Amino acid sequence: MSAEAFRQHGRAVIDWIADYLEHIEQHPVQSPLKPNDVRAQLPAHPPERGESFEQMLRDVNEIILPGLTHWQSPNFFGYFPANTSYPSILGELLTAGLGVQGMLWATSPACTELETHVLDWVVELLDLPREFRSTSAGGGVIQDTASSATLCAMLAARERVTGNATNERGANGTLTVYTSQQTHSSIEKAATIAGIGRANLRLIDVDDHFAMKPASLRQTLRADRAAGKVPAFVCATVGTTSSNAIDPVREIGEICREEQLWLHVDAAMSGTAALCPEFRHIHDGLELADSYCFNPHKWMFTNFDCDCFFVRDRAALVRTLSILPEYLRNTATESGNVIDYRDWQIPLGRRFRALKLWFVIRHYGAEGLRGLVREHISLAQEFADWVRESDRFELITDPPLNLVCLRHIEGDGRTQAILKSINDSGRAFLTHTKLNDRYVIRVSIGGTRTRRQHVEALWRQLRDLA
Amino acid sequence: MSAEAFRQHGRAVIDWIADYLEHIEQHPVQSPLKPNDVRAQLPAHPPERGESFEQMLRDVNEIILPGLTHWQSPNFFGYFPANTSYPSILGELLTAGLGVQGMLWATSPACTELETHVLDWVVELLDLPREFRSTSAGGGVIQDTASSATLCAMLAARERVTGNATNERGANGTLTVYTSQQTHSSIEKAATIAGIGRANLRLIDVDDHFAMKPASLRQTLRADRAAGKVPAFVCATVGTTSSNAIDPVREIGEICREEQLWLHVDAAMSGTAALCPEFRHIHDGLELADSYCFNPHKWMFTNFDCDCFFVRDRAALVRTLSILPEYLRNTATESGNVIDYRDWQIPLGRRFRALKLWFVIRHYGAEGLRGLVREHISLAQEFADWVRESDRFELITDPPLNLVCLRHIEGDGRTQAILKSINDSGRAFLTHTKLNDRYVIRVSIGGTRTRRQHVEALWRQLRDLA
Repeated sequence: MSAEAFRQHGRAVIDWIADYLEHIEQHPVQSPLKPNDVRAQLPAHPPERGESFEQMLRDVNEIILPGLTHWQSPNFFGYFPANTSYPSILGELLTAGLGVQGMLWATSPACTELETHVLDWVVELLDLPREFRSTSAGGGVIQDTASSATLCAMLAARERVTGNATNERGANGTLTVYTSQQTHSSIEKAATIAGIGRANLRLIDVDDHFAMKPASLRQTLRADRAAGKVPAFVCATVGTTSSNAIDPVREIGEICREEQLWLHVDAAMSGTAALCPEFRHIHDGLELADSYCFNPHKWMFTNFDCDCFFVRDRAALVRTLSILPEYLRNTATESGNVIDYRDWQIPLGRRFRALKLWFVIRHYGAEGLRGLVREHISLAQEFADWVRESDRFELITDPPLNLVCLRHIEGDGRTQAILKSINDSGRAFLTHTKLNDRYVIRVSIGGTRTRRQHVEALWRQLRDLA
Repeated sequence: MSAEAFRQHGRAVIDWIADYLEHIEQHPVQSPLKPNDVRAQLPAHPPERGESFEQMLRDVNEIILPGLTHWQSPNFFGYFPANTSYPSILGELLTAGLGVQGMLWATSPACTELETHVLDWVVELLDLPREFRSTSAGGGVIQDTASSATLCAMLAARERVTGNATNERGANGTLTVYTSQQTHSSIEKAATIAGIGRANLRLIDVDDHFAMKPASLRQTLRADRAAGKVPAFVCATVGTTSSNAIDPVREIGEICREEQLWLHVDAAMSGTAALCPEFRHIHDGLELADSYCFNPHKWMFTNFDCDCFFVRDRAALVRTLSILPEYLRNTATESGNVIDYRDWQIPLGRRFRALKLWFVIRHYGAEGLRGLVREHISLAQEFADWVRESDRFELITDPPLNLVCLRHIEGDGRTQAILKSINDSGRAFLTHTKLNDRYVIRVSIGGTRTRRQHVEALWRQLRDLA
């Protein structure tokens, strides 16, 4: 493709995206397609000769678009948001155009330094503990997802408790790790990947608000030590996936200090709320944590993938993940004066993800980001009030932030039928969970384009169906 | 940012990228900056109010650009290539604009189905074993990197040999894994992550061409079994990082069949050569492998990240990595008729990476891709001839494909000084390795924009310095 053709097609794609996002409400939010509907339209064999870009874009319209569930629709209230935004898209575009690798400082100094710098900005924006700044013994890094960040934290914890013996000799089946019954599936996945094993993952009881009970944690730790187990790692969740429950980080952190356990805090979705001083209570006690992560690719308008992962002791992380073959040796690394982010993550290669986060923070400014977060939380709280006032629906728990969990008073069958009606209508998209063994609709309010009228329309539709 | 502003800034970024790539040779290939040069120019605090996009793009020019090592320069011959191309950039742009999540089939059917379909195309393009097609018991998936693919393969192997006991109870320190002394650092990293441990990684001897010696593998396996170890996994490399050595996959595969070991084949850079029938000998015996990966983001003009990972038995992979919490349950998953790619990888979330690969294959066509690969290999072979004819340099080994390893006849000091001169000149960029304990310059020829004149200019510069 010539540069001229790229300019022309590039403009077409930019316009395509603007048209798509401006008119996204025309599409049913959930794709109505059945399995194999997309594949059935694709040629069985790859083309022998090159095809025109116009044809590809036509196929995107005709084959791909109907097969999408539109995560950027303002009527998407499922899962957690996975936001993109115009400045973020432009950052990602530039990253693809530059095509640099940031595995080492030396392979593109700006790629590493901008990332370190913007993550220090994030510490300031969220008022995170100063121990997470690169100017301390800690620092931040961009990971693809909270799953990967949690795995890295668990690995560092594993090595710390075994005095690096695991790295040398392999796990031995005695390590145990702890999180709440309401935790994200990624903690269990990390425990299996790290060779710790599902049987050595303890799911601690939760209270009436679905938050971890510190007393139960303490009790389980005691029982495990008595049985000869070696506790290594605790993951507290700030904003669980099912109900947005906030684990009591301070009390859990104090136990971890006493017991010398690595505390990781997973705030994948909810961490963004700490942009606003009035919501920073969710991080109370965070200075007791060894590591922390949240995802700007969820609620901070930065397209996937962008998880910010911070550690208090970067040496512990690097010791766990560093391997330096001859072909990566260089004078900057040997000087000890630079960060090589390959030692902070599972993969070796990495793209220049800091650009899009830099663009988002600069475009919105701290003030602009706070405004959107406040609007989403306020809409969720108002939505919760509507549910409280309704005689057809009931709230499962008071929503701490921007996720509302509700059910129809007639029970699971009716609740499930309502959710299905809404998703089948294409007018909005919702997902479910189970809390106290009951089927629950989750209303997750945090889309880049979600405003009052979309939340009101959802409530009208729910009410009409009830 | 309004849609109109996005259209305007989007055009500016498209033009910026076209200008950058068309004039990329104006920049020194290696960034001349020193540690902290970039950070020193960035404001200490994040902005309270939003800034203009024009200002951001100015900062990219003034602060970021001088801090880059230009991987897309035709004069970049370091490491392995990390290619981008115009159609790939447009695919990545569209992915960022759509902002859909492909963790489940249900979260965007087209995202999953296009990926499965294009990976079946790749099986055909590279003439890979039919067992890797989705229509068999196997299938393909896009991972971020070969590091992650190898880790997934090792985890599936770990579970197979322990009858899933590791997932339940944790690794026990008896498993052993095997690869060559010339292997990539990611195999060691995977062994430590999986809790197998460095001490249980066996680095098998290599022959004069730096390829694994099957007899040594057999001997080591025998000794390990005699010592009560449980061999689990072998990784063969097709195109090692240091010298592009091709391990004898067929002989290694036969041993793995006899010994019932999982064979993973890592062809991260070199796999792309199999686009051309005349180079498919590198994959001889691949039908004996349990898994295989190569990176279109290296030599197939698809921007990072895009690793194609194939398995013969997808059930083994899914069994290892699947966790299904209530909030991800859906009727499509329960029907068993769809692929949920979250069960094929470490993270949960995933972006729509198949779009860019689809665009690249369709834009170039099989014929166009083969043409570029043939050109790079032919240039490397010619370059090797120039080295053979030179009385100042010597070849370390006959280059199998597109990587040439050479040294100055006066030894390490002189070779190292020449490499430094070239990188400091900014006219080209090279990296080194050690082979047989000697310092060696690697000339990796595979850039999207690298043509005869760039390779000739590099040789002139090397000759002048020698």
